[in-house]
Amino acid sequence: MKTIPGGVTAPLGFRAAGIYCGIKKKKQLDLALLVSEKEGPIAGVFTTNRVVAAPVILDRLHLKKGIGRAILVNSGNANACTGPEGMRAAKDMAQLVATALQSAPHTIFIGSTGVIGQPLPIAYIKKALPTLLTRVTRRGGREAAQAIMTTDLKPKQVAVRTRLGGEMVTVGGMAKGSGMIHPNMATMLAYLTTDAAISRRALQMALRQAVEQSFNCITVDGDTSTNDTVLCLANGMAGNETLKPGSADFTHFCTMLETVCRTLALKICWDGEGVTKVVRIQVKGAKTPQSARQIAQTIATSNLVKTALFGGDANWGRVMAALGRAGVAIDPTRVSLQFGDVAMVRQGQGLGAVAERRLAKVFQERDFTILVDLGLGKAEAHMWTTDLSYEYVRINASYRS
Amino acid sequence: MKTIPGGVTAPLGFRAAGIYCGIKKKKQLDLALLVSEKEGPIAGVFTTNRVVAAPVILDRLHLKKGIGRAILVNSGNANACTGPEGMRAAKDMAQLVATALQSAPHTIFIGSTGVIGQPLPIAYIKKALPTLLTRVTRRGGREAAQAIMTTDLKPKQVAVRTRLGGEMVTVGGMAKGSGMIHPNMATMLAYLTTDAAISRRALQMALRQAVEQSFNCITVDGDTSTNDTVLCLANGMAGNETLKPGSADFTHFCTMLETVCRTLALKICWDGEGVTKVVRIQVKGAKTPQSARQIAQTIATSNLVKTALFGGDANWGRVMAALGRAGVAIDPTRVSLQFGDVAMVRQGQGLGAVAERRLAKVFQERDFTILVDLGLGKAEAHMWTTDLSYEYVRINASYRS
Repeated sequence: MKTIPGGVTAPLGFRAAGIYCGIKKKKQLDLALLVSEKEGPIAGVFTTNRVVAAPVILDRLHLKKGIGRAILVNSGNANACTGPEGMRAAKDMAQLVATALQSAPHTIFIGSTGVIGQPLPIAYIKKALPTLLTRVTRRGGREAAQAIMTTDLKPKQVAVRTRLGGEMVTVGGMAKGSGMIHPNMATMLAYLTTDAAISRRALQMALRQAVEQSFNCITVDGDTSTNDTVLCLANGMAGNETLKPGSADFTHFCTMLETVCRTLALKICWDGEGVTKVVRIQVKGAKTPQSARQIAQTIATSNLVKTALFGGDANWGRVMAALGRAGVAIDPTRVSLQFGDVAMVRQGQGLGAVAERRLAKVFQERDFTILVDLGLGKAEAHMWTTDLSYEYVRINASYRS
Repeated sequence: MKTIPGGVTAPLGFRAAGIYCGIKKKKQLDLALLVSEKEGPIAGVFTTNRVVAAPVILDRLHLKKGIGRAILVNSGNANACTGPEGMRAAKDMAQLVATALQSAPHTIFIGSTGVIGQPLPIAYIKKALPTLLTRVTRRGGREAAQAIMTTDLKPKQVAVRTRLGGEMVTVGGMAKGSGMIHPNMATMLAYLTTDAAISRRALQMALRQAVEQSFNCITVDGDTSTNDTVLCLANGMAGNETLKPGSADFTHFCTMLETVCRTLALKICWDGEGVTKVVRIQVKGAKTPQSARQIAQTIATSNLVKTALFGGDANWGRVMAALGRAGVAIDPTRVSLQFGDVAMVRQGQGLGAVAERRLAKVFQERDFTILVDLGLGKAEAHMWTTDLSYEYVRINASYRS
């Protein structure tokens, strides 16, 4: 598997573009369109938030048929908490594209990200769409990745390629999400494309696995925004033998999808609001994967841990305090902590001043792993977290103004 | 019930002092002693963290006998994750005071707050104790409140008085805790004193109730530091008829205790690290108190809500997103939101630009209530939260340096 330049338009048969249609106050791209030459199976994973935005409701409905042709996404307005009017606007978005492409409305998927609770100015989208349709190209992936950004600093895209089922198969992707990350993640959107021939069921299975090991390790199930969406559209234009679950090629495809998802997830972390560090929390020696995950999550979301990371303050006690309050039965006297290659806690006890001095150097690094060994069992889990900086507060205190 | 000046030394028979013994790097008071003329029943509520500091382990042990005479508290070092050596240091702290006061060691309670995982320099405490003992006075409450501070900006104390069981009864208290508040609260310590005559069982019952409605509404059960402690010592010197559960006087006493606890809890909020706002989250219309609490807690701990409060950004959508991801089954189309006196969401839908303009003014206030009505049942819960500011990050990024 090789990483290649480009993103959603790297696989065969995909075109994309981005445009400024007027939703954002500042004149920045705010409408992205991704079109496949041929329709094909589409898979999706959505927010588990109980308050769900209109575009997510619509996409879930369309996903029941499981066929995709195009995806239209606006930024600057989330079309969430907008009632029946918002639902109409969402349907209009899909209908406009369907009419233009002469496709069934259920093959059009949409996304929205931005401020919650404001009416979506569908008129702007309607007006911009004809121009947008003329501009989609094989090289438009980056522009589309730009048009779905909100507080993101950089467009995020990636593509990988390998030979599968006798043909070169490519998977591309773009994402937005400016890593407030769990537990208060702003909307995370990711759109993946592939020219692989694959059944809808296999695609959904592969996507769910990939998301579990990537986006869900920065966001965690159940702690999502109103709009979070991951979609993967496969148009089969690579002409490979159809990938079947259980086959070696399918496993390779899963790895490709996971690589794309993990790369995008880490790009989200790095582009996080004010992020200067990305740290992996690895929990092992747990009794169950659930408890390992719960502890990883509690550490990863501790504001005290996150500010210590920002300050480069080797305050390992905050990690101990966080794992103690995760709601999981642990035995403190069995806990070991290692930061990078520095063992700092053994049997629940600090290893002293020499280790602390070495630890201080680890905390200066931009990325490292915090390894927690509970000493109770064999289950493990990991999560990525970022530091909490002045910039985070600045950006989020004034997001709308 | 009247609020009177003073804190832990306001009730009859209590003396206190604070001293600098050398634990803190800066020359600031770091050792507090509180002594009652007579021993009496003592009640306690402790952290639910699984990683528990040595002083908490010792206090829990001493609490089994339920008799208190004095409390010795150091700041600057948490004596947590310090292993058997830390446990010895904790016992030494109690033993030193017990010897000096000629009391049984189990009547001496101790507390520690500060950095986790560093050996407690018990020699400093031993050396300073004789001087500290000579300095305890009836007016020393404020000095003691100062000596238990870590990142606190102000000492926190309060006292209330009323006639109960035929005599004037006073309840006093001091606390430290510099409102990172839930979910990553730094250690919260609160020490309450009263001259009321009351049984140990009744005192424990009253304390548990009071903490539930006050400190637990800023910290939430299960999300505590390694050292959190609330103790209440009653020496009976008011000479009132012993307060009995079920009596009107006991109810009055409970109200006094709750008032002291709530006042201290709100002082902790206001003294929070970089806090400029304290906001009450009131959830009603829930099916169960647990679900109401879970939603209040999720909103109260949302970094996006907290930064919006800091920025005065009337971003009510973040409240909707937070309540949707609380893990509680809700019906978004029944949700109402009110901020101060401004209704902003009805049936899950924003009420438009006029309401938003009024809302912007509410967000400029230093304290207000966010009222969430789920429209599902009759249960309710409340929590206080604070904003998340630059100062929070600054203080916590460099706590140890």
